[in-house]
Amino acid sequence: MSYFDQVSKVTYEGRESNNPYAFKFYNPEEKIGGKTMEDILRYGVAYWHTFTGDGSDPFGAGTAKRPWDHLTGMDQAKARVEAAFEFFEKIDAPFFCFHDIDIAPEGTTMRETNKNLDEITAMIQSYMKTSKTKLLWNTANNFTNPRFTHGAGTSSHADVYAIAAAKIKKGLEIGKELGAENYVFWGGREGYETLLNTNMKLELDNLARLYHMAIDYAREIGFDAQFLIEPKPKEPTTHQYDFDVATATSFLYQYGLQDHFKFNIEANHATLAGHSFEHELRTARESGMLGSVDANQGDLLLGWDTDEFPTDLYATTLAMYEILKNGGLGRGGLNFDAKVRRGSFETDDLFHAHIAGMDAFAVGLKVAQKMIDDKFFESIVDKRYETFTTGIGEKIVSGKTSLKELEAHALDIDNVDLQSGQLEKIKARMNQYLLSV
Amino acid sequence: MSYFDQVSKVTYEGRESNNPYAFKFYNPEEKIGGKTMEDILRYGVAYWHTFTGDGSDPFGAGTAKRPWDHLTGMDQAKARVEAAFEFFEKIDAPFFCFHDIDIAPEGTTMRETNKNLDEITAMIQSYMKTSKTKLLWNTANNFTNPRFTHGAGTSSHADVYAIAAAKIKKGLEIGKELGAENYVFWGGREGYETLLNTNMKLELDNLARLYHMAIDYAREIGFDAQFLIEPKPKEPTTHQYDFDVATATSFLYQYGLQDHFKFNIEANHATLAGHSFEHELRTARESGMLGSVDANQGDLLLGWDTDEFPTDLYATTLAMYEILKNGGLGRGGLNFDAKVRRGSFETDDLFHAHIAGMDAFAVGLKVAQKMIDDKFFESIVDKRYETFTTGIGEKIVSGKTSLKELEAHALDIDNVDLQSGQLEKIKARMNQYLLSV
Amino acid sequence: MSYFDQVSKVTYEGRESNNPYAFKFYNPEEKIGGKTMEDILRYGVAYWHTFTGDGSDPFGAGTAKRPWDHLTGMDQAKARVEAAFEFFEKIDAPFFCFHDIDIAPEGTTMRETNKNLDEITAMIQSYMKTSKTKLLWNTANNFTNPRFTHGAGTSSHADVYAIAAAKIKKGLEIGKELGAENYVFWGGREGYETLLNTNMKLELDNLARLYHMAIDYAREIGFDAQFLIEPKPKEPTTHQYDFDVATATSFLYQYGLQDHFKFNIEANHATLAGHSFEHELRTARESGMLGSVDANQGDLLLGWDTDEFPTDLYATTLAMYEILKNGGLGRGGLNFDAKVRRGSFETDDLFHAHIAGMDAFAVGLKVAQKMIDDKFFESIVDKRYETFTTGIGEKIVSGKTSLKELEAHALDIDNVDLQSGQLEKIKARMNQYLLSV
Amino acid sequence: MSYFDQVSKVTYEGRESNNPYAFKFYNPEEKIGGKTMEDILRYGVAYWHTFTGDGSDPFGAGTAKRPWDHLTGMDQAKARVEAAFEFFEKIDAPFFCFHDIDIAPEGTTMRETNKNLDEITAMIQSYMKTSKTKLLWNTANNFTNPRFTHGAGTSSHADVYAIAAAKIKKGLEIGKELGAENYVFWGGREGYETLLNTNMKLELDNLARLYHMAIDYAREIGFDAQFLIEPKPKEPTTHQYDFDVATATSFLYQYGLQDHFKFNIEANHATLAGHSFEHELRTARESGMLGSVDANQGDLLLGWDTDEFPTDLYATTLAMYEILKNGGLGRGGLNFDAKVRRGSFETDDLFHAHIAGMDAFAVGLKVAQKMIDDKFFESIVDKRYETFTTGIGEKIVSGKTSLKELEAHALDIDNVDLQSGQLEKIKARMNQYLLSV
Repeated sequence: MSYFDQVSKVTYEGRESNNPYAFKFYNPEEKIGGKTMEDILRYGVAYWHTFTGDGSDPFGAGTAKRPWDHLTGMDQAKARVEAAFEFFEKIDAPFFCFHDIDIAPEGTTMRETNKNLDEITAMIQSYMKTSKTKLLWNTANNFTNPRFTHGAGTSSHADVYAIAAAKIKKGLEIGKELGAENYVFWGGREGYETLLNTNMKLELDNLARLYHMAIDYAREIGFDAQFLIEPKPKEPTTHQYDFDVATATSFLYQYGLQDHFKFNIEANHATLAGHSFEHELRTARESGMLGSVDANQGDLLLGWDTDEFPTDLYATTLAMYEILKNGGLGRGGLNFDAKVRRGSFETDDLFHAHIAGMDAFAVGLKVAQKMIDDKFFESIVDKRYETFTTGIGEKIVSGKTSLKELEAHALDIDNVDLQSGQLEKIKARMNQYLLSV
Repeated sequence: MSYFDQVSKVTYEGRESNNPYAFKFYNPEEKIGGKTMEDILRYGVAYWHTFTGDGSDPFGAGTAKRPWDHLTGMDQAKARVEAAFEFFEKIDAPFFCFHDIDIAPEGTTMRETNKNLDEITAMIQSYMKTSKTKLLWNTANNFTNPRFTHGAGTSSHADVYAIAAAKIKKGLEIGKELGAENYVFWGGREGYETLLNTNMKLELDNLARLYHMAIDYAREIGFDAQFLIEPKPKEPTTHQYDFDVATATSFLYQYGLQDHFKFNIEANHATLAGHSFEHELRTARESGMLGSVDANQGDLLLGWDTDEFPTDLYATTLAMYEILKNGGLGRGGLNFDAKVRRGSFETDDLFHAHIAGMDAFAVGLKVAQKMIDDKFFESIVDKRYETFTTGIGEKIVSGKTSLKELEAHALDIDNVDLQSGQLEKIKARMNQYLLSV
Repeated sequence: MSYFDQVSKVTYEGRESNNPYAFKFYNPEEKIGGKTMEDILRYGVAYWHTFTGDGSDPFGAGTAKRPWDHLTGMDQAKARVEAAFEFFEKIDAPFFCFHDIDIAPEGTTMRETNKNLDEITAMIQSYMKTSKTKLLWNTANNFTNPRFTHGAGTSSHADVYAIAAAKIKKGLEIGKELGAENYVFWGGREGYETLLNTNMKLELDNLARLYHMAIDYAREIGFDAQFLIEPKPKEPTTHQYDFDVATATSFLYQYGLQDHFKFNIEANHATLAGHSFEHELRTARESGMLGSVDANQGDLLLGWDTDEFPTDLYATTLAMYEILKNGGLGRGGLNFDAKVRRGSFETDDLFHAHIAGMDAFAVGLKVAQKMIDDKFFESIVDKRYETFTTGIGEKIVSGKTSLKELEAHALDIDNVDLQSGQLEKIKARMNQYLLSV
Repeated sequence: MSYFDQVSKVTYEGRESNNPYAFKFYNPEEKIGGKTMEDILRYGVAYWHTFTGDGSDPFGAGTAKRPWDHLTGMDQAKARVEAAFEFFEKIDAPFFCFHDIDIAPEGTTMRETNKNLDEITAMIQSYMKTSKTKLLWNTANNFTNPRFTHGAGTSSHADVYAIAAAKIKKGLEIGKELGAENYVFWGGREGYETLLNTNMKLELDNLARLYHMAIDYAREIGFDAQFLIEPKPKEPTTHQYDFDVATATSFLYQYGLQDHFKFNIEANHATLAGHSFEHELRTARESGMLGSVDANQGDLLLGWDTDEFPTDLYATTLAMYEILKNGGLGRGGLNFDAKVRRGSFETDDLFHAHIAGMDAFAVGLKVAQKMIDDKFFESIVDKRYETFTTGIGEKIVSGKTSLKELEAHALDIDNVDLQSGQLEKIKARMNQYLLSV
């Protein structure tokens, strides 16, 4: 049977134009800078938004019309797996991602939940044998169940902590079974609602302990996935501990965990934290910790996570610039942690939305690669900092000077030959690059 | 002569009621929890806002009417010193703080500037001999001069870096001369306007080098002040490197500087970063890095630094709670980095504003101490986390468990006996504490 | 039977101290400025948050533990009515408020829904015969059902518009039946997600037509309740048409509706729009359109509607000041459109939360009345604007001057004797008023 | 003499490529939809940012290097006029805009100021005889002088009100003399810092009186310029009365002024108010009040007015769409109320910045015209609302129905055939339009 029979297969427009489901810019086989687009972009489909989400919001019930709506429980879970692999193939997705409870319903106890998970995991594994689509990452949902109200790895109750730990254990096992490239930690309830009733120190200590146990267990079972922390500043909690890349880096260093984690950076989480997407990418990159990307976008005039499909070509261009400068994403990828709008409730919209996002990053890749080939930013930057390549500047950079020597150099300077930063010219030039695609 | 002859001396209301310049809640000699208010609160007057500021804003010229307005250059600088010490005495301020160019005008070269600084420093030193007011901290203004457009310690030009370094050297010398308790680094231009033309890695490396040189030089001259970093997320630059406590902590750890710095936390900078004031205090406290406080407040409906005098009693109470739990501020203090509103242009307003702030923190201190005496928060917190004191919880906290053991504990739990967080009750109780002052 | 048997009755502390459910500041019979607190404050309980809400959020399932959780459908609806009236009595609430679907489950068609509504309305009416609690307002929920995805009175589909209209018709009938003092319009889906697919003109025209029809129908059935618009800037839609008081006023004037509506002002909606609570109250008051209040509070560091119980005494004081200056709220009241936090999941928390809010507004009332009695703000304001009482100022205010005459007056002025705005002194004084309660 | 001798003339790239000062997309003579780009876009240069601004910010002194820096007073004012007309010609600007004190220095009294203004006005008039550049609008700066601390038309002091009125009178006279197409009112200090000391009603009444007097005086002297209000929500004041288009519309209606004003909409002011640029344009357009545009952009991650040159092609496209649907801007234009960054301090940057902005709106115009030609949005919108063209929908739109009839229509509907909003598809298609330029 088919869940999406209205769509034969999304193809590259050059080959099959006038198809409303065709990519206009993404062509998996096209080479950019020596590699195929598919190899660079490593797109992932988010199971929760695309197969589990229903379009509900805090003020309204679900709107999504899905071919598995009439089913429940394990039957629905299985239909979703079938639909997912059909979707992956049609949209040409190299990767997918999931939380445990996205793929299988929870039981009353973890024992029951794990039984459900085992059954679905086996089914997924079977599908993966004949599918090209691989698992970019999986994770444990330690935030939806009411028991996580006060946190999971930072819960105020030891039993909840134990359950969270057990779910991570199971997640690591599933990841190993399905060959996940990464394992993600998003601290959806790891934070506080108010400091008035919170022992922040104990909570952070416990969280670090949990991470250490997870590292140990992954090693024990031979699961070599890259561990990723996904920062978010707030929502659902008032303050989340992994506020942004810098905050999580500080935590990792303070607990001696910095060599075991990289970051999964989400665009919308970056802007909620008051940063640009490229800021978070750059910060992680320069610390050697850029691991993977949750490719979506937010609405900067709104104060919550909208998880929109990414279409802003400025954002995708600057993101791809950082990613290319990082030498790619390694084992990471571009996971569309994005949901169709509540008003885009047809299954068609799932295709159009993924095409929109995949095309937007394909454009970003092309523009970024062209700017790198032309040494566009590099030449601007090199010229700006050239005083650090000779004389006192060279001494500064090589760490061979002192306040005294610098004072001697500075005392009688009355005019510094500063250069303009030329931001307006740079922005105009970027528009020209963009429009030349 | 007197600059503020309309004010005899601000006194405690109990002794001199009906005086419009009286403190209503602050009494320097009153003991709270065994120490005098003066010893705990360690108030500081900010030289720049109170003696140099003129009430101008980006859309308007200065409005402040000051008795030294008719003077210029060094004459004005000297008048300000005289006025400052009169003000300190009348308002009963134990401390003050300044940037280099607050106290003396800049020359064309640093050599000239330093000459001016030496003259005024000597004058201040002379005043300090007979004044009880001490120097809480000083710093170098490395942001106002146009040459710092592209940064100071993170400038794209080596000469500017050298000048910034030389100004810090001079600042350390002045600090030593005047017995400063702390030395502050606020990176007003240490950040970027756009990543498009920025070598962030080089800039951060250079900043770290500058800090290392400053540590070396302070040791060389025997200046033992506490070094403080003052985080701010943005303004004037689009993105400042010391975004918040966590970001700066991450930087310090990555460059091996974590043992040499504490934080000077400003309320308005905290809220601009998306945090509560108490969040930043707590974060610093739990890392052992709470050094000093810039006591002001912002307007959360505005997106820029308003530097208002602190009057919000919730904020002062929660701040004092963190400070008391920290065992006080050590060598730090509560510096009023706050300016009278543009519309509050009379010298009288300087007195009323400081009284408002000093009273507000005095109330905060009283309420916080009472809550601590009653173990108000402590008992809530202890009860919330009590499952970590026995059984599996104790094992977790002592680091003696594993994912396997935790899974065994968790597998058959079907219901966790969670307690309500009781936030509403706690907030109501806090109001009762506040109103009982 | 009792739903809240752990609580005997919330009483005033003076009469029954040591009762954890006692009011500390609210005493319904206490007279303030000649009226009882109960008559001035006119508290309302929000049916949806208190009896229907379950503590769920976009990232988690419901947490609330309620005595009616085991029931479903009409049985649950009836249990909620019983519980509600028990709660009203115990908390001493003079009013309550509801949306249609809060009180009765929806059927497949409106005909079925109306049948359910009729049954529950009759039950409520019966309870109201022996209860002192009255209906402050009711409204139709035109936002939860998926069919309202693209709006209700501004839907892109005529059938949805018809359904929305029919629900309002039923709402007006229920309001009349239960003697509602007001009828509220909150445009939860009246707005747009993107202008790209929106005919804003048609939508606004249709909304105005709906309001005109509602006015006509209320007149037809003799329902004389005050009509209230409740502004909110965003959430759930990206942009809501009733952004704030000024926006809705502009709409009302442009469609000739200004004489038929007042405003129901919610604190958290005000701050989401970038205004203080008191700004919205003042704006409505000065246009003669302050109707009622949704008494809650938001978290200004978060960008969504948190609907917290109000505990900020500054906000309640300034709100009560506006309300008292308005001569009270007339037929309006203070409806607690507030929900206990997700972590406050016990029924006890419902009591503590309402006590917190009722006490907070009682304090606000006392402080505001005292400031009015002392002419605190009035005397400041009168002095500030005194130049408008004589000479050229009087001419300006009486509209008897011209640019020419004003120029003649102004041409040779070289210095204006401006007074300081004294904000810092005013804020310090407000703290003294607050602490004197 | 030449002030910008490094630039011969900015030309269209097609004619003179490789010129760093060439337009890449703007060609004044190119026809789009039947009109020349120049006639549609009506670009204006902002005198204050380009000739008076110095790059200072609240944390730093001016950085701009200008050929008139060595001059002062009237000599400098005259040099600026010479430079301005050279700049206008080289950049091919059809319009310019100014505040009174941009063009001439203030004297101690208005009489002196007016004398300066007369001299410079005559000089400008003389230049305009041989220049193609016309005056888009002028205005009075009623915010910079310290006397406007507490407002101008809403000042708490009658003398200040008189001075503000006199400045407007002079502004109207200068506008008439120089043939201004519009006259702008931006209420930079018309608002409040705190409601605690503010008589909002008196202030708004006085402002309305001032507008009425201005209308009368313009009529008296036969000055027929379009009057424009420029909304801004905050900065410099905490709350500005002309918060946004809707707020100002509400004010105009309440004071019977709605037929005398249109709006000058600034992109950065829109976003500070929580709206998109296109929202404000649409709101004004649908009220028939879209007058002119201040073409700039803000940084949505910052909370203050950055007045950047517009380069975001999404914003320029959506703005041009609204403008084209408005039938153009009539007597209005696109004024670059934008300043080069503090770090872009060379005169060259002035050219690059204007080229960036003019090119960006030229691209926006091309894309918008193409979308209109293809009925891109129109066909989406028409289809979405088609149920309003027949049956019950037609009745609704024609105002010929009632709640009763709508209820009869609605009672038994169990399923509405809603269409998807297709936002993701629309956004992807917009990217394709953009990249096809």
